[in-house]
Amino acid sequence: MFIKYTCSATELERDGFCQNPFFECLIAEVPEEHKSKEGFTIVGYAFYFYTYSTWKGRSQYLEDLYVMPEFRGNGIGKALLSKVTEVGKNKGCVRLQLSVLNWNTPSLDFYAAKGAQDLTVSEGWHFIRFDGKHLDDLAKGAPKN
Amino acid sequence: MFIKYTCSATELERDGFCQNPFFECLIAEVPEEHKSKEGFTIVGYAFYFYTYSTWKGRSQYLEDLYVMPEFRGNGIGKALLSKVTEVGKNKGCVRLQLSVLNWNTPSLDFYAAKGAQDLTVSEGWHFIRFDGKHLDDLAKGAPKN
Repeated sequence: MFIKYTCSATELERDGFCQNPFFECLIAEVPEEHKSKEGFTIVGYAFYFYTYSTWKGRSQYLEDLYVMPEFRGNGIGKALLSKVTEVGKNKGCVRLQLSVLNWNTPSLDFYAAKGAQDLTVSEGWHFIRFDGKHLDDLAKGAPKN
Repeated sequence: MFIKYTCSATELERDGFCQNPFFECLIAEVPEEHKSKEGFTIVGYAFYFYTYSTWKGRSQYLEDLYVMPEFRGNGIGKALLSKVTEVGKNKGCVRLQLSVLNWNTPSLDFYAAKGAQDLTVSEGWHFIRFDGKHLDDLAKGAPKN
């Protein structure tokens, strides 16, 4: 399942199974007799973590929701999404957030059909990132006291 | 400082100072002789938490960066931002992300001047949210096994 990741399995194990894990992951498993063409019984996953709103409190962010193409259309994605929110509600979370690329119409439609709001469209939220040299430069400029 | 929040001080204390804190917060403090008109010595803060990219690993998300209007223009915002990234780099974080409203030109310019990318403009990322009844409905639909 993790072949698509740049993060190595070692990094994922270290960061997901430590004392203060950086993320949680739910997997969808099928019985052996329904395994994938390539022989896998784990056919989907939801990868998420906890975030926080100073207005609303505990929240969740869904980083990845994936179902193998040959298993799509069976409600597995919906089941994973629902399970993530159930886990979140049991922890007192009041929001589930995620990001989708504007050309990814199937995903945008999938979430919209379940009642998600597109906050970039409705409120104008833009997603900003520092990385690489600019992140290094910022860190180097930190006050020393 | 927390008057602007809907979250109560009790919730913030519970969620920020528990065993697996949901967030961290750095504050900017001035000496007593430079206190604000209303008598505060804490004049700014950066509120952030840890996130995770399945491509890049440990990351940070800056939820709030605030400096009291009367203390702006003195580099306090830049110092807080730098300190957050320094803390992150010491934890192995390779990204700092945040969201800004498209009409908030001063903030967009502030981050762009320090090398931030606007991923909504450059890649088309949209910000999606479930809350309220739609979140409840999702959680209720979770499979029971």
